[in-house]
Amino acid sequence: MKKLINDPSQVVGEALEGMALAHPGLIRVHRTPDFIMRADGPVRGKVALVSGGGSGHEPMHGGFVGRGMLDAACPGAIFTSPTPDQMLEATKAVDGGVGVLHIVKNYTGDVLNFEMAADLAKEEQINVKAVVTDDDVAVQDSLYTAGRRGVGGTVLAEKICGAAAETGADLDAVTQLCRDVNASVRSMGIALSACTVPHAGKPSFSLGEDEIEFGIGIHGEPGRNRMKHERADQLTEMLMEPIMRDLPFKRGDHALLFVNGMGGTPLIELYVVFRKAASIAAQHGITISRSLVGSYITSLEMAGTSISLLRLDDRMVRYWDAPVVTPALRWGA
Amino acid sequence: MKKLINDPSQVVGEALEGMALAHPGLIRVHRTPDFIMRADGPVRGKVALVSGGGSGHEPMHGGFVGRGMLDAACPGAIFTSPTPDQMLEATKAVDGGVGVLHIVKNYTGDVLNFEMAADLAKEEQINVKAVVTDDDVAVQDSLYTAGRRGVGGTVLAEKICGAAAETGADLDAVTQLCRDVNASVRSMGIALSACTVPHAGKPSFSLGEDEIEFGIGIHGEPGRNRMKHERADQLTEMLMEPIMRDLPFKRGDHALLFVNGMGGTPLIELYVVFRKAASIAAQHGITISRSLVGSYITSLEMAGTSISLLRLDDRMVRYWDAPVVTPALRWGA
Repeated sequence: MKKLINDPSQVVGEALEGMALAHPGLIRVHRTPDFIMRADGPVRGKVALVSGGGSGHEPMHGGFVGRGMLDAACPGAIFTSPTPDQMLEATKAVDGGVGVLHIVKNYTGDVLNFEMAADLAKEEQINVKAVVTDDDVAVQDSLYTAGRRGVGGTVLAEKICGAAAETGADLDAVTQLCRDVNASVRSMGIALSACTVPHAGKPSFSLGEDEIEFGIGIHGEPGRNRMKHERADQLTEMLMEPIMRDLPFKRGDHALLFVNGMGGTPLIELYVVFRKAASIAAQHGITISRSLVGSYITSLEMAGTSISLLRLDDRMVRYWDAPVVTPALRWGA
Repeated sequence: MKKLINDPSQVVGEALEGMALAHPGLIRVHRTPDFIMRADGPVRGKVALVSGGGSGHEPMHGGFVGRGMLDAACPGAIFTSPTPDQMLEATKAVDGGVGVLHIVKNYTGDVLNFEMAADLAKEEQINVKAVVTDDDVAVQDSLYTAGRRGVGGTVLAEKICGAAAETGADLDAVTQLCRDVNASVRSMGIALSACTVPHAGKPSFSLGEDEIEFGIGIHGEPGRNRMKHERADQLTEMLMEPIMRDLPFKRGDHALLFVNGMGGTPLIELYVVFRKAASIAAQHGITISRSLVGSYITSLEMAGTSISLLRLDDRMVRYWDAPVVTPALRWGA
């Protein structure tokens, strides 16, 4: 295992320290329990957004903390849920007096721990709501979940809901918007290679020279099937078909197309995928009016991609375009 | 070779088409000859900045086209210089009547072709100046260069000079600023793995299980030496020492620290490197007052990192902070 790390047990903590040093104007890092919060938080009178999950998916979620997106993020160990005390302390730290929304990817550990944290926060008179994201159409249940997994759509929900909260929406409105985004987005991914969790020291699975894993999750967990590697256009078709059918998307829809890298795939390949995905959408009468291309929800150094397609309404477009100032997503301010 | 591509000979063109579809508000893509220009260009009365180089280093340079950075970028084939006609047509397309600066990384092919393009542009009455960047302290000469290679510092020069041009600086001033940035920045990188050029179909070199290449260039060309893999902190020390000694940086300096991923290294590891590099800088009395962390100048899916350290003056800080609206770097507007 060749990685730019020191001690596998210290990777998350040392990366948090690096983030604090790199972005002092945007975020503050709290240790023991670990969470990242926006530098100017808590913001009085604003609904606060808290997310979190296992580390190894960077920049999600810590890179999305800042004005116009998350108020706090709780990083667990690599591919391991954060603990309820992290979530509780983060919730208390960013509560601005008008409620806190937990955005939780649907993984059993994350869901249970966020529920426990919410119960504890309510005992301290903090109004907490939660939305569980489950946009992955690849599988109904998985190694890590009952029900569908929360994947790329979570990034879009965090951006859009963060903007809503920033502009004064109340807890019920932000919660409903988050449910609406989750209900309007579908995602699916493939892996061309495995990744190596530092404390495991060896790849989480192995793929043959010409094999890919289709319908992968973000922890290297298996997807729909293992298959022969194909050309990018064919793989993109195979990803887009179930995504578009599941909602279903229809002619006249406006959509945001998010082509995500799993960590080890070069940007030039993501644009090759984007080209085909946009062309498929156009053939179906769907207008791609917003886009995101890059490695935003990753599985360490895994090679592969996921596609997320979000049906946009005017409200979502407005909140997508609104200013955001975080380490990983930044525009308009 | 498992890549998200169709035909190796079409990768660059298809990625350009994908970029055009993903960022219609920011850039326009011209084919045959290939170049990317800002959507609102040419901008009358503004000095135009043109860069370019082999593809495979994305987001550099095409991802840096837009308001406040480059006016145009010319992508060659993977790891291959673009041609003079690309550079000439890009120069003509973005010329706003007050001159064009070519920012050229020091690789023999790039330098020769940009010189030829500048000569041809001058025949058409366009005032062209050029700055060759050569910030890599790893080697004096290389497989691809006479003299030092242009690496990460180029990204910083393009951002800073783009802001200067945007705010009305004339061609002489922008040219001098670019020379100043290049003179104030030092870089060095390591590779933990090789990358595979699509038309070659196999890795450009091979490294043992526990080997790294120290002082690597951005094409997988060899660096100073091949050595045993070490902990991130030790590798970071080995990168920072020659960087800081070469300028030399000194106590009281303010600097921008840029920790770059080579394409296949997860962000979490880059922050581990940033932590140590910032700590080394602090021990030497250097204040890291600006930062950039991410994969901005890459070698396809190569695992590794490069560190660039730029000594800042007030002018550079102001231009660094100024608005930029490109596919890959975006803030403040």
